[in-house]
Amino acid sequence: MSQHHPHATGEDRRPHVVIVGGGFAGLWAARAVSSAPVRITLLDRGNHHLFQPLLYQVATAGLSAPNIAAPLRQILRRQKNVTVLLGEVAGISPAEKQVHLADGRTLAFDHLLLASGATHAYFGHDDWAPHAPGLKTLDDALGIRRRILTAFERAEAEDDPAKRDAWLTFAIVGGGPTGVELAGTLAEIARHTLRGEFRRVDPRKARVLLLEAGPRVLASFPESLSEKARAQLQKLGVEVRTGVPVAAIDDEGVQLGDTRIAARTVLWAAGVAASPLARDLGVPLDRAGRVLVEPDLSVPGHPSIFVAGDLASIQCDGKPVPGVAPAAKQMGRHVARSILARLRGATPSAFRYRDFGNLATIGRMAAVVDLHGLKFSGLLAWWFWLAAHVFFLIGFRNRLVVLIDWAQAYWSYQRSARIILGGDRDG
Amino acid sequence: MSQHHPHATGEDRRPHVVIVGGGFAGLWAARAVSSAPVRITLLDRGNHHLFQPLLYQVATAGLSAPNIAAPLRQILRRQKNVTVLLGEVAGISPAEKQVHLADGRTLAFDHLLLASGATHAYFGHDDWAPHAPGLKTLDDALGIRRRILTAFERAEAEDDPAKRDAWLTFAIVGGGPTGVELAGTLAEIARHTLRGEFRRVDPRKARVLLLEAGPRVLASFPESLSEKARAQLQKLGVEVRTGVPVAAIDDEGVQLGDTRIAARTVLWAAGVAASPLARDLGVPLDRAGRVLVEPDLSVPGHPSIFVAGDLASIQCDGKPVPGVAPAAKQMGRHVARSILARLRGATPSAFRYRDFGNLATIGRMAAVVDLHGLKFSGLLAWWFWLAAHVFFLIGFRNRLVVLIDWAQAYWSYQRSARIILGGDRDG
Repeated sequence: MSQHHPHATGEDRRPHVVIVGGGFAGLWAARAVSSAPVRITLLDRGNHHLFQPLLYQVATAGLSAPNIAAPLRQILRRQKNVTVLLGEVAGISPAEKQVHLADGRTLAFDHLLLASGATHAYFGHDDWAPHAPGLKTLDDALGIRRRILTAFERAEAEDDPAKRDAWLTFAIVGGGPTGVELAGTLAEIARHTLRGEFRRVDPRKARVLLLEAGPRVLASFPESLSEKARAQLQKLGVEVRTGVPVAAIDDEGVQLGDTRIAARTVLWAAGVAASPLARDLGVPLDRAGRVLVEPDLSVPGHPSIFVAGDLASIQCDGKPVPGVAPAAKQMGRHVARSILARLRGATPSAFRYRDFGNLATIGRMAAVVDLHGLKFSGLLAWWFWLAAHVFFLIGFRNRLVVLIDWAQAYWSYQRSARIILGGDRDG
Repeated sequence: MSQHHPHATGEDRRPHVVIVGGGFAGLWAARAVSSAPVRITLLDRGNHHLFQPLLYQVATAGLSAPNIAAPLRQILRRQKNVTVLLGEVAGISPAEKQVHLADGRTLAFDHLLLASGATHAYFGHDDWAPHAPGLKTLDDALGIRRRILTAFERAEAEDDPAKRDAWLTFAIVGGGPTGVELAGTLAEIARHTLRGEFRRVDPRKARVLLLEAGPRVLASFPESLSEKARAQLQKLGVEVRTGVPVAAIDDEGVQLGDTRIAARTVLWAAGVAASPLARDLGVPLDRAGRVLVEPDLSVPGHPSIFVAGDLASIQCDGKPVPGVAPAAKQMGRHVARSILARLRGATPSAFRYRDFGNLATIGRMAAVVDLHGLKFSGLLAWWFWLAAHVFFLIGFRNRLVVLIDWAQAYWSYQRSARIILGGDRDG
């Protein structure tokens, strides 16, 4: 195992900050120390920062992958104290202050920010994973897009009516924001986008089911907005089933209590689990595997190791900080400030989450918004959601192209990325 | 094996025209019989028509895949006499007038257009294929994009100077239009796009080699334009080597005569071979495996079977018709007219190729154009090439987005699709 020096020429005595993960937490932390006397190494498995809130649009063929992603190197090219490294982290040695990469390299750090996020969790049913893919990365999104588009193709080619119906049945497991977005958009595709393009099947007869084990969809919203969301979903043609957990998933469909649903396309939006790297820290984790951090987001017993974003478990004002993009950005910036405070010999302050509100989109012209008492839904909420998301997309070009795609989708019901890529086209 | 009826409801006595391939030849043939009393089944492996002339832009991260592709169903949705089927053709029985699909289905036809195009040819060196991928499909393009972007990442992570140089060396085999486009664009990426984004390597030091076994690049152009192209390539920083064939390709590089070139990225733009389906027809083929068609583009001895596009070998005015998009469109339309003539009891006319000229792009502001005597190169040729290609792109939205991407690329040197997708990120 060789010691790796990102700045091999000359000895660099600036403290070395290693950031694992180029998501909202990691990237915002890196940006917040742009002028500080530290050298930063940002590690990520992929070469890009992903605007995850719009990932469901890539999965449902409304946007192309590069629309919602930007190369980390490009974003950070002017910030000369950052080195971006593409690499998979295999382990962390907190006591030795080392990060081990899968290719055998080792990075020594003075300060570490672990912001490697979350992945899908199947609640002990990992055998469901191949039948019900989840949505976390661009590759996940392109795989789901392929499944959705291929299902309609298979239905068109199928002679057996029962088999055809199973190809035209889409079950989404999990009624949180991602499940609601996927279900609403799928219903729109079936009812409008594909209309008139098939000769043997009518895509409008496709069934889209949203399966939520709990009593209501969008459980993190006030109950009145959950009701609005349910009504809007039903108006779009989605069958919402709440209160019954999924008992089994296989290649042919879903078992929901006593009911068998024949569905060749099942998508998983039900659960996330923290990145397994959290276990390497040797500190207590919560039930979802997230690190129970100190008020300043450091790891108990390791003042120079911080956790931010979906991997951090913390309460603010008696409520858990949610796993959303604004919280991740705020945590990332706070960790940057904490590290700079430590370097000055000061004590880092406690993290405080500024909750600007909660919004979720449902489908064409439908969304729900909760701005602390100010609650609204429907068309106005949809415009609010659209403006907020386009505004926060990185890069002017992406914003413009996303707006064009959406304007075109809005008027024509067409979707610009209905291209099946890669994989087994017959599967 | 079950007989498949695309129009299962009611008996349809209209003649059944089967088109294999939704490229320029197949799609233009289908469109040309929109109002004819025939029913058409268009078969393709993919769900989209691909604007192949811009495929190199997807491979070099300038455009995203959906920018240059459109779903066949969407293009043809208003043409009610066409059924689009996603499927792989496994074989053809010309005497029985049947097309056999890989999934076991059989389609009976009255008229057949075989327009399944060409694939890469390694001249008996199929073992080179994994080391030197070719560029024919969107999946090919995304794979090449991944290799190019990953090579720079690997160089940044590499400590050994010789290995680092090998990651920064790109060899393109074949000096035809595709090889010239790839080489010119790669040089632009290395010199400009990635500038300032790496901390340990200087992407401007990357070597881009264009290897052509023949005496000059762009052999299908007049010699003066080949010279201009060579000069423009060299100005962009491409090393052009002509007159020496490649002797071997492996994972570490290329053997060029007595010279060994250590290059971790080798791209194949040297040869194409006709689709193997041509062999099923049992008629004479040319050296590249293309069908030697009759003057009306029918297959000798099978007047109801036609071949068009890259799969057809035909001479017009004593010159072979080239494998370019305008020729494929013209052939597709001609086959449509020939089928309609046969249905009327008339004799189809001979195909005549209208050659509007030849153009190739080289890189930023560089191209060559040959319009029968009117030859020009450089910036004016590049604008001409851009206008022609954007004009012929299917769909208003694609044209607009491509223009935005290019305008942005032109002013900023940035490329909008620098996202590594799928595959083994470490490979």
